[in-house]
Order: sequence, then C-alpha cells, then structure tokens
Amino acid sequence: MTYELYYWPSIQGRGEFIRLALEEAGTRYEDVARQNGGMPKLMRLLENAGVGESPFAPPFLKSGRLLIAQTANILLYLGARHSLAPKTERDRLFVNQLQLTIADIVAEAHDAHHPIASSLYYDDQKREAKRAAHHFTKERIPKFLGYFESVLENSGGPFLLGRRISYADLSLFQIMEGLRYAFPRNMTRIEKKLRRIQPLCERVATRPRIADYLGSDRRLPFNESGIFRHYAELDT
Amino acid sequence: MTYELYYWPSIQGRGEFIRLALEEAGTRYEDVARQNGGMPKLMRLLENAGVGESPFAPPFLKSGRLLIAQTANILLYLGARHSLAPKTERDRLFVNQLQLTIADIVAEAHDAHHPIASSLYYDDQKREAKRAAHHFTKERIPKFLGYFESVLENSGGPFLLGRRISYADLSLFQIMEGLRYAFPRNMTRIEKKLRRIQPLCERVATRPRIADYLGSDRRLPFNESGIFRHYAELDT
Repeated sequence: MTYELYYWPSIQGRGEFIRLALEEAGTRYEDVARQNGGMPKLMRLLENAGVGESPFAPPFLKSGRLLIAQTANILLYLGARHSLAPKTERDRLFVNQLQLTIADIVAEAHDAHHPIASSLYYDDQKREAKRAAHHFTKERIPKFLGYFESVLENSGGPFLLGRRISYADLSLFQIMEGLRYAFPRNMTRIEKKLRRIQPLCERVATRPRIADYLGSDRRLPFNESGIFRHYAELDT
Repeated sequence: MTYELYYWPSIQGRGEFIRLALEEAGTRYEDVARQNGGMPKLMRLLENAGVGESPFAPPFLKSGRLLIAQTANILLYLGARHSLAPKTERDRLFVNQLQLTIADIVAEAHDAHHPIASSLYYDDQKREAKRAAHHFTKERIPKFLGYFESVLENSGGPFLLGRRISYADLSLFQIMEGLRYAFPRNMTRIEKKLRRIQPLCERVATRPRIADYLGSDRRLPFNESGIFRHYAELDT
C-alpha cells in the first residue's frame, strides 16, 4: 500500500512533520499535491469538508480507505504502525503530549510573523509582528526549549523517551531547523544554554533515511511562505 | 479511583473541556487547585517539568500513577475509558481530529484578545486586539463553525458522529458557550446561518449530568481572565 500525503506543494509547513515520519519509516508515499494534477485533487477533498472524515485543513493522509487530518493525529496513527512510538499506553500518551506541545510552538512561530490575521500580508502586520516576535524570541522559545531539555535530562537521552526514537524526536528536530532558519541571531544566543537538544538533532539528521531525505529534492527549502520565515527585522 | 484534575482555579479555560468530560462520565474527580492547599500542589508538579510525564502547562490529569497533559490527549484517554469515544480506530481518529480542530479555534479565540503576547496585559495590546478580533469574528469563526455544520450534516446528527455522543460534542458545546459570551453581537449574526449546531448544544446542555453540573457551583462563570473574554470593543 502507498500512503497519499496531501499538503501545500511549495512549503515545508505542517506537512513536514508527516514527511519526516514517512521517510524515517521507509514506507512508500506520494506527496500528491507536488505531482502533476495533484493540487485539484487536494482542493476537491478540502471542498468536500464534512463528508466522511474530511479535514478542516491540510495536511491530511490517505491510508487505504482511511482519511486522517491534523498533524498530531496523523502522527499518532503512523507512530503506532511504523514503530515510531512506544508500545505502552503511558509512553504513547506521553509522545502524543510532547507532539501537541510542539504543535503549540509551531502555531506561535507562525503567529510571530502573522499576529493579526493569516489572511493579511506580512507587510500589513509588520509593526505588530515586530512586537510579537520580540516576545516570542525572548520568552516563548527559551521556555519551550527549556522544557524539552528537561525532558531529555530526565529520560537520559539521546531521545525524548530515552534510547528509542519516536516521532516526537523527528518533530523536535524540525522545529529546531525552523527556528534556526527564522531567528538565527536569537537561536545562537538561546542554544548556548542547551546541551541536550543539539545532540538529538545531530542523531536525527544522520539517520540514514533522514540524511538521504534531507539531501534529496523531496526536502523543500525553507522560504517566506511557510511557517518558519526569516525576516531580519524580527530577529533582533 | 478518583481522578485528580489540575487546572487554574478561577477560570474555565482549557480545563473546562476536561471538566465537561468528567462530569458527563459521572466519575469521581477532585478539582485539585480549587481546594485548600491545591495551588501549591499544582505548582510543584509544574516545576518538576520533565520528570516522568510532567507537563508543559495545565490542564493535567492524574489517573492512578499516570500523569497526562494536553487537553486533547487527556480527552483521548478519558474518551476510551468512559464510552465518550467510538470503538473503531477510524472513528476514534476522527474524534481526535475534531478535538484538535476545536483546540485550534480555542487558541485563536485567546489570541483575538492577546495577539502580541500572553505575558502582556490586554490594555497593552488593545489596538492590535481590535484588528485581530475583526478578522477572527468575520473570517475564522464562520469558517470553523461552517465546518462543524457540514460534519453534522454528513453524520445526520444530532451529534458529530451521528447518534452517539462523544467528547468532541461536549467540546463543541463549550466553544459555542464561550464564543456567545465573548462575541454576542457577532454570534447572533453568525448563528442565523447555523441549523445543526444549536440543537446539538441544547442536547448537550440538557443531558442530566451536564445540566446538573452547569447549575452547580462547580461550573465557574466566564470572566475576563479566561480564554473567552467579553470586551465590547472587540465585538463590533
């Protein structure tokens, strides 16, 4: 069986958390909207919102007759099927909890450049974005990353749950990549206090399937249409 | 066994989604921080972040030796234990998907009055909040509620998955209560186009255990410290 991933074709965005899990799992998938004729297929599913399990927004994943939306929900499903989540209920709930906390940072990272409305251009909320990004980089990034440091300290590392990798590790790698791209100056400062997240990121980046993916053209570059955007004026 | 719910003692906030599920389940629970000496217990668990399953933020739930955080994650756990979620994997994933979509509206409802930073007072971001709330009430609320209408249309109602109630129905009831409190003028306009959500809300509100809860002093009133806040200047 081949999974079908539906996500916007020109950004990493929330779809990237799913791509990383599918790549690490070594499973077959089509990135539908990046293929010829793929965007109309995506739009058709979106317009049927409410029919069956149809989604409010991308990303969504087709697995046989299942249609699953919401990033953390898709990962909950894939994690159980591809050994990217632990077996016990306790640990599985904890991985989901970590992923939902990552989802919260992702939303805040987006809102740092779009604090007023997603429907407005960045330039129409640039002044507000400067204020929002100040608080995001000074308060929220250190708080979130400090939390993940303490989880790693407690697990003993190298991964969030200890010796075995889970999809939450792939996602933590991805937000570190995104934050470094968007806020290089702030992240240089913040990362001086982190001891455990960088080694985790290196472990993730050098896993054979992930390294292969990151070096391929399946990995889209970061850009200023995605969630993590680099605007120098927001990285002071 | 008695559950222990940990949440801020003076607001409904995200804790309310858990309270509604516990009340509908008819199970025993302590609302820890609302009892004498409860706040220090909550703070102690928060300060131990990273130890075991400790949370990034409230709400969190103690169930025996399990400590579970993130609203949608707690509901995933409670739903399975108290018949507040369907039995099949497909339907359980769909309820989780709906709950995560509700979590997205909740975050946006908060950001409508705090678009710049949670750490700032409302008065320090009132101007920005006016712009944000305009887009939230004109674009986002109609889009989200239109989606849930279409889910109800497809399921045949009266609940999101059809005949049986799930925790996502309790949560949809709660966001409707919150949105009506925060934006009464806009909601009067928006609700004219909704046919299926109001009957669902009435069904939820009149369930014996929920009706009992809503009439008790266990149900905190909405206020201007919570997620759903009424500021007349944001409801134009």
